[in-house]
Amino acid sequence: MRHFDMEMTELKKKLVDMASSVQQMIKISIDVVVKRDKELSKDVFSIEREVNLDEIVIDDTCLKLIALNQPVGSDLRFITSAMRINSDLERMGDEAVNICETGVELLEYPELKPLIDIPKMVVIVTEMVKESIESFNLSDTELAQKVLEKDDAVDELKRIILKDLIEYMIETNDRSTVIRAMNLVSIAKRLERLGDHATNICEDVIFMVNGKDIRHNNRSN
Amino acid sequence: MRHFDMEMTELKKKLVDMASSVQQMIKISIDVVVKRDKELSKDVFSIEREVNLDEIVIDDTCLKLIALNQPVGSDLRFITSAMRINSDLERMGDEAVNICETGVELLEYPELKPLIDIPKMVVIVTEMVKESIESFNLSDTELAQKVLEKDDAVDELKRIILKDLIEYMIETNDRSTVIRAMNLVSIAKRLERLGDHATNICEDVIFMVNGKDIRHNNRSN
Repeated sequence: MRHFDMEMTELKKKLVDMASSVQQMIKISIDVVVKRDKELSKDVFSIEREVNLDEIVIDDTCLKLIALNQPVGSDLRFITSAMRINSDLERMGDEAVNICETGVELLEYPELKPLIDIPKMVVIVTEMVKESIESFNLSDTELAQKVLEKDDAVDELKRIILKDLIEYMIETNDRSTVIRAMNLVSIAKRLERLGDHATNICEDVIFMVNGKDIRHNNRSN
Repeated sequence: MRHFDMEMTELKKKLVDMASSVQQMIKISIDVVVKRDKELSKDVFSIEREVNLDEIVIDDTCLKLIALNQPVGSDLRFITSAMRINSDLERMGDEAVNICETGVELLEYPELKPLIDIPKMVVIVTEMVKESIESFNLSDTELAQKVLEKDDAVDELKRIILKDLIEYMIETNDRSTVIRAMNLVSIAKRLERLGDHATNICEDVIFMVNGKDIRHNNRSN
């Protein structure tokens, strides 16, 4: 294996490792919300510090790979896609931190029974995140396309969750209910954004493999 | 001027033009909300189509510039920063579209008098966006730093707006008030994200000019 190829494999490994940290952050953040366990939130913050470092190291690796090897074609597309995926992963980590913080805020109040369709949304979004990374790792554009197709379902679920929570706020009009419902709205929106980042990664994978920019074709914005 | 330098100047111009379209989208979206004028929303959608095209063209230009010129050092940093700023600008356009759509939804209801501190937030965020682009255009890291320092004020304003809107929902407990207040919450969050994108651009400018990655130093996430 050429030295350059070894470095490219190493870059891919770094991104996949970072992605697995981000997935862990998402999982724990949701546990903070669902299991109402504040202790877990510490782990989210400590993994975030690692992910933030990963982002800087990976960007630096990419710049050096370009500067020292002058790649073209698919190699260059791989490196620039890696930079973009790197940035999406870091922002996914930020979303997880936000979900976690909202989860901690919710602990100040008694549990609001109806989590509505949030668990359903968690299942789809978690799947999208996992598959987007898998599609990158395996350069699997079919899988990437499958993920893109799930985005509408997530948007629709968020719409229903918002509607249900608004109804709930109107029916049970006390301060604590409104605050808790607002926090759940915030979590639903963060989940939607996690799904958006997963679709960004998939678009990058398709561009990386096919050299075809499909952004703004497959979805409305 | 070398051919390469001319192309770099051209790339910068493309980004600044795209940025001015995005600024226009933001301005019109806010007008849709404040002036309650649905007609204006058409302009937002038509500029969005241009911005989406700009994004693809700029990324393509960047890749070609790297592949054909094998830049290193500050030139390479400029191009990769341009790719990142490109992506932030496009996402800022998405935020504007969302503000605009929320503004249109609000037209279904009578005006909710207290826009609370939203106009104040608009002023700061609009300024941040303008200055972030100016800092890129002039490679002005001092200005970039100034923008970064405004981010806390935006976060604080958003916090106050949310608190005020929750109070308002609790006091005036009818369906229409709750829905309108929720829409204003959504707009405040979109404004906050516009500010976040502006800070991303500023971090890129500082990296581009100084070669120093300041992400995760100057702010909490």
